[in-house]
Amino acid sequence: MEIYKFAYQIIEEAGRIIRDSIDDELHIETKSNPNDLVTNIDKETEAFLTKQILNTYPHHRILGEEGQGRDIEDEAGTIWIIDPIDGTLNFVHQQENFAISIGIFIDGVKYAGFVYDVMNKKMYHCKVGNGAWMNETQLKPLKNSELKSSLISTNPIWLTKDKLADIYKLIIDDARSTRAYGSAALDFANVAKGITSAYLTMRLHPWDFAGGLILVEEVGGVVTNQLGEPLNILEANSILIGNKSIHDELLSQYFLPHTSLLKKIHTERFKKNK
Amino acid sequence: MEIYKFAYQIIEEAGRIIRDSIDDELHIETKSNPNDLVTNIDKETEAFLTKQILNTYPHHRILGEEGQGRDIEDEAGTIWIIDPIDGTLNFVHQQENFAISIGIFIDGVKYAGFVYDVMNKKMYHCKVGNGAWMNETQLKPLKNSELKSSLISTNPIWLTKDKLADIYKLIIDDARSTRAYGSAALDFANVAKGITSAYLTMRLHPWDFAGGLILVEEVGGVVTNQLGEPLNILEANSILIGNKSIHDELLSQYFLPHTSLLKKIHTERFKKNK
Repeated sequence: MEIYKFAYQIIEEAGRIIRDSIDDELHIETKSNPNDLVTNIDKETEAFLTKQILNTYPHHRILGEEGQGRDIEDEAGTIWIIDPIDGTLNFVHQQENFAISIGIFIDGVKYAGFVYDVMNKKMYHCKVGNGAWMNETQLKPLKNSELKSSLISTNPIWLTKDKLADIYKLIIDDARSTRAYGSAALDFANVAKGITSAYLTMRLHPWDFAGGLILVEEVGGVVTNQLGEPLNILEANSILIGNKSIHDELLSQYFLPHTSLLKKIHTERFKKNK
Repeated sequence: MEIYKFAYQIIEEAGRIIRDSIDDELHIETKSNPNDLVTNIDKETEAFLTKQILNTYPHHRILGEEGQGRDIEDEAGTIWIIDPIDGTLNFVHQQENFAISIGIFIDGVKYAGFVYDVMNKKMYHCKVGNGAWMNETQLKPLKNSELKSSLISTNPIWLTKDKLADIYKLIIDDARSTRAYGSAALDFANVAKGITSAYLTMRLHPWDFAGGLILVEEVGGVVTNQLGEPLNILEANSILIGNKSIHDELLSQYFLPHTSLLKKIHTERFKKNK
């Protein structure tokens, strides 16, 4: 079976398992801080996906949020980058508005991206070159838009950080309005679908953006870090995505004038993390 | 027919009409500023609801976002407070995530509240004393929670305003995480449903909060302005809602220490507006 179709099937199946257990009591642990949660369902979903993939493709490699493949340092072969539940806080508090995210790369080349909005049963999916889709509906190429007449999304927490707040304040003031949804993968899907025109955040891991990156590029969106550089798919990155026009505007008018500050933040935030 | 059942039916019907025309081209105008939009659908929906109500109840009064009843200055009789489309920016940009909101008051006493998530066909409704419901599912009484382990919602724009930013920064820093959904009525429904634990914003009109106010109180939530006072249903108000515990915490620890600043802002922002 084509890897793309196989991926689609196991993600749908993982989503069905999550929906079936959505009312069960969760076992919740904290990770890096009291608000960085992981549940038994995150772990079980990653284990399920890993088992399915390796049973069928024993030579594929997997990089997953819950521990798979942290030793991967090169892009050789087929790599699956997996977030079993993106938006764990939403999962825990809302029992909705979370996603399974998978990006598949072959020898470093983007192959396919998936973001599955589990509770709404909306699968955002694309095999590179064949268009991006929500279930059976093809997503349209992104229309260009200006910041002042666009909805954007970002986490308000960046406005509480010294120096960084100055950059984000200007953007939020100049945007038509700002949203915060709490799942990076769905934020990418929202940009791909045109629900928002841009999404920006200071730090995502590969599993947060790998699936969405491929979707957004497939509809003509631009995906870079906040210095305008391509994302390294094996490392944490800052994120700036949007239609071509708003991406240019945000990068040139709001981020590049602060290159030295952003470089410093990048160095400080990312040095200890893959 | 009972007013409550009648209201339910005409809101559902208005929602069906909106869904049927969701792909039609909109006529968009601006109101108070370039981001304050109104469409033909806002106006047509208010006209539809007004006609239905007055045909059946000629003596009822209506206060609506799009112009109905701006001369209402007392709470005598039965008053319908209507927002035909709450979250107009979402309606225009997303074609989803907006709501019809109606609160009904009889001689100033809360009678029934409705928030209809049109595209998801989720009707949040309650007749006071009979519980709050999402479609046929009764909403549970709100659980108490602390800010540090809660999701809250607010618009990030408040973090860009001098002085006010200092209050909002502390709250957002101390919350587990912050969301911004872009529809006040749905923000109230989300608190009633437990999707978020609190919602705060600097200024809503009666049509933005009338339906949600009744829903949130029905599940044991607390609804006040940011000075801890009850909302005046005929005037613009600042808003602080949540489960009892987080409302107490936000009010006593974050807002009341800034009473004089908030009073000044209230006076400046609300003096020219009903």
